[in-house]
Amino acid sequence: MEETYDKLVERLGEVQDIAAAAGVLGWDQRTKMPAAGAQARADQLSTLTRLVYERFTSDEVGSMLEKLGPWGESLEYGSVEASVIRVARRDYDKARRVPIDLRAEMARAGALGEPVWREARTTSDFALFLPHLEYAVELKKRYIECFQPVDEPYDALLDDFEPGVKTAEVRAVFDELKAGLVPLVAAIAERVDAVDDSALTGDFPVAQQEQVEGTILRAFGFSDDEWRVDETAHPFASKGGPQDVRLTTHHRDQNLTSLFACMHEFGHGLYEYQVDRSLYRTPLGRGASLGVHESQSRMWENMVGRSLPFWEHFFPLVRDAFPAQVNGLDAEAFYRAVNRVRPSLIRIHADEITYNLHIILRFELEQDLVGDRLAPADASEAWDAKIEEYLGIDVPDVADGVLQDMHWSGGAIGYFPTYALGNVISGQLWERMQRELPDLTGQMRNAEFGELRAWLAEHVHCYGRTYMPRELLEREVGGGLDPQPLLRYLNEKFGAIYGLNGA
Amino acid sequence: MEETYDKLVERLGEVQDIAAAAGVLGWDQRTKMPAAGAQARADQLSTLTRLVYERFTSDEVGSMLEKLGPWGESLEYGSVEASVIRVARRDYDKARRVPIDLRAEMARAGALGEPVWREARTTSDFALFLPHLEYAVELKKRYIECFQPVDEPYDALLDDFEPGVKTAEVRAVFDELKAGLVPLVAAIAERVDAVDDSALTGDFPVAQQEQVEGTILRAFGFSDDEWRVDETAHPFASKGGPQDVRLTTHHRDQNLTSLFACMHEFGHGLYEYQVDRSLYRTPLGRGASLGVHESQSRMWENMVGRSLPFWEHFFPLVRDAFPAQVNGLDAEAFYRAVNRVRPSLIRIHADEITYNLHIILRFELEQDLVGDRLAPADASEAWDAKIEEYLGIDVPDVADGVLQDMHWSGGAIGYFPTYALGNVISGQLWERMQRELPDLTGQMRNAEFGELRAWLAEHVHCYGRTYMPRELLEREVGGGLDPQPLLRYLNEKFGAIYGLNGA
Repeated sequence: MEETYDKLVERLGEVQDIAAAAGVLGWDQRTKMPAAGAQARADQLSTLTRLVYERFTSDEVGSMLEKLGPWGESLEYGSVEASVIRVARRDYDKARRVPIDLRAEMARAGALGEPVWREARTTSDFALFLPHLEYAVELKKRYIECFQPVDEPYDALLDDFEPGVKTAEVRAVFDELKAGLVPLVAAIAERVDAVDDSALTGDFPVAQQEQVEGTILRAFGFSDDEWRVDETAHPFASKGGPQDVRLTTHHRDQNLTSLFACMHEFGHGLYEYQVDRSLYRTPLGRGASLGVHESQSRMWENMVGRSLPFWEHFFPLVRDAFPAQVNGLDAEAFYRAVNRVRPSLIRIHADEITYNLHIILRFELEQDLVGDRLAPADASEAWDAKIEEYLGIDVPDVADGVLQDMHWSGGAIGYFPTYALGNVISGQLWERMQRELPDLTGQMRNAEFGELRAWLAEHVHCYGRTYMPRELLEREVGGGLDPQPLLRYLNEKFGAIYGLNGA
Repeated sequence: MEETYDKLVERLGEVQDIAAAAGVLGWDQRTKMPAAGAQARADQLSTLTRLVYERFTSDEVGSMLEKLGPWGESLEYGSVEASVIRVARRDYDKARRVPIDLRAEMARAGALGEPVWREARTTSDFALFLPHLEYAVELKKRYIECFQPVDEPYDALLDDFEPGVKTAEVRAVFDELKAGLVPLVAAIAERVDAVDDSALTGDFPVAQQEQVEGTILRAFGFSDDEWRVDETAHPFASKGGPQDVRLTTHHRDQNLTSLFACMHEFGHGLYEYQVDRSLYRTPLGRGASLGVHESQSRMWENMVGRSLPFWEHFFPLVRDAFPAQVNGLDAEAFYRAVNRVRPSLIRIHADEITYNLHIILRFELEQDLVGDRLAPADASEAWDAKIEEYLGIDVPDVADGVLQDMHWSGGAIGYFPTYALGNVISGQLWERMQRELPDLTGQMRNAEFGELRAWLAEHVHCYGRTYMPRELLEREVGGGLDPQPLLRYLNEKFGAIYGLNGA
């Protein structure tokens, strides 16, 4: 049995090598590749992707998994061997359900849809993009058919990003979250002048930004021999290997969005960096899900990087880097400024509170689209209505409305909810951490992040994909998805900033 | 038949995609990868290399080639179809002759040998490296056995880098070259003070170097949407795709070696860039051989970048970038400085003349090593004797003698002669070009390189691997390898610089 297992692991390792190579090519494409290299890169990625698929879904892998199944179940559930067999089996069954032609058509439609979306957004022309949206939804429905029976259609999509989590569960969590957030947003709206963030727009030379970012990332745990950070259009994090973590950011010389992007991507990078080395080249060697991943990025960006103790330490760094710009502010005023809440049209610029509402509306629309309750042609109107309902603002333009995100153009439907699930999970983990690391605040005030990193390694990161998100939560916070910790955290933090608690 | 051909081309295209992906990973490893990423990168490259080999040497490819052989021979020799079949057949037969175990052992020995060589060079300890050299030679002899019968053992090694060229032919060419160079070096040695290059050592801030390099590369034909240039330890050029050309260089702030490295690598890059687009994803889609490649890099570095008309145009750029350093020089004095000839120990720092002697001595030693006429244990002594004979200098230290080059540590024996063959070929092409582009000197004086690029595209680059080096020379200069044009060029150029012609 061990021999078959070794053979399986070698085959899976080879698949991981090819996937990792494709990952480096993807990183290169978005950071270094000369623009005209796009066609050849598409050929290379298409070949590597096909190889990964062919070699993983081969009958040979299937029969090894078949043979190993009972043995795997006889082993300790969390052992590497049992988990490799279990997770590979689940991946294998999912991969085999989808005909290669449908996969290829989805990839093709996504590649064709993206430039059209780009043009449609530039020209604010929803009608131009509509046929592509219709086809993307159509393809997703065919994809869902491969996974019947499902409780509801959206389950099949969500499972690709948040394995084992059901739509009904997310809906309940989001309804509860929405019920808590909408009144908070309304209360803040009445005290909107309590926070002044005018110092955050102006003159921030990129060279100084890079110096500030470097200091903060190094304090977090970044080091040159295992990490790097590069410029890109839409920031992401990527892993070339267990000790090769690559963050990206996008500098603008009129604000500090890049600094927060760096801290966000650091959270993703640290997760990947701290996956146990014994899981390298196995299907377990990366984060458990997009939601758990996002819990890490949002934690470093918001719970650390937008906290008062953090800025009590690092404000002098920013003040010295941009003396004219933040002249006259102190650490607390700067902390308040980076936490200003303001309902706005664009998700990626949204604050820590309203961000969740942007996600919830997309989650609701996506369910309606694939559930045939909303025609793609009516998506823009439905979007605008929800923005009005949740955020109280008008959408003047489809470019800032239904066309703002790239996701649907590439066929990524079912992906959005993971962003807000990440916030929910970060709240649950953060609350437990407060109990277990009572000095966390003091440590952040001293720019000491070692215990925080170690806690996250031990309780979340080391496992990689050993446990599904639900199992991980069960083990680490003793329950399922629960928005209350996030709501408590947001109410406490923003209640203090906006003076709501005593109101 | 066309159907089989299309199938073959698709399979070969897939192989090219994987090889190109490995190429990008190799570029990344040497320019961007965090140091600690080395282990994972080795796994990825080993898997991709194995895939390339497996998919190319499969029985399926063999039977397609078998079936297509007569059809290919019925087509025009230089047509894409005939050439794809012919070149793939040759590659296939060579690849199938070497057992996979020997290939793997050569790769393993090379990977193990390189760090030992590095340490041996640092500590000047030839005995430390000797067992690895012995094993490398031993493996090469086993490799040669796979290709029996050969006229002489070294033929089998040379063919990997200079297909179709025989050792006897190179020996004759090099003997003629040596006979011409040794007296030239001796004559220059008597007038060594005629050239002062002291201005080339001193203070050259890297930022200004980059600006000068950027201006010159752009004049050559570099553009940001299809090319890039990055820092590395040992400069090389690489291609991520037909319109994705990547140069590398290594800056030192005390001299201008990086500028000449940039021009050298541009020559390699331009060759790859100008391979006809119709050869993309076929085995023909890259340079014909290392020697022909080197003819291009040396041409741009030396015949263009160390020419008087070139510096008549670009000297003001250098003077303005480094005013204190080149103060008081004019274009001609600067031209003389960058052409100073000085017998020296280190190949990579050698001038345009003595460089060839460094190569010839390696070529001679390599033949003796694999021909059992020289024991590896005696290689250092033999090295020193030849340096004394050809260059008239003592080798004080093995680090600057037999241990100076990395090549043998990685198992690359048979590679060195291509460097001097490149010089020989560049001489042949340059002489023909003088006739066909009578205004070339005037164009260089105006920094106009379009006609030069076009001539090279039409006569050399466009063909890729369609023709073997011998065939290419036959077509373009009407003969075989001939060192006389290079000797004429060197005698004329350095005769003028050192005042030898009238002497």
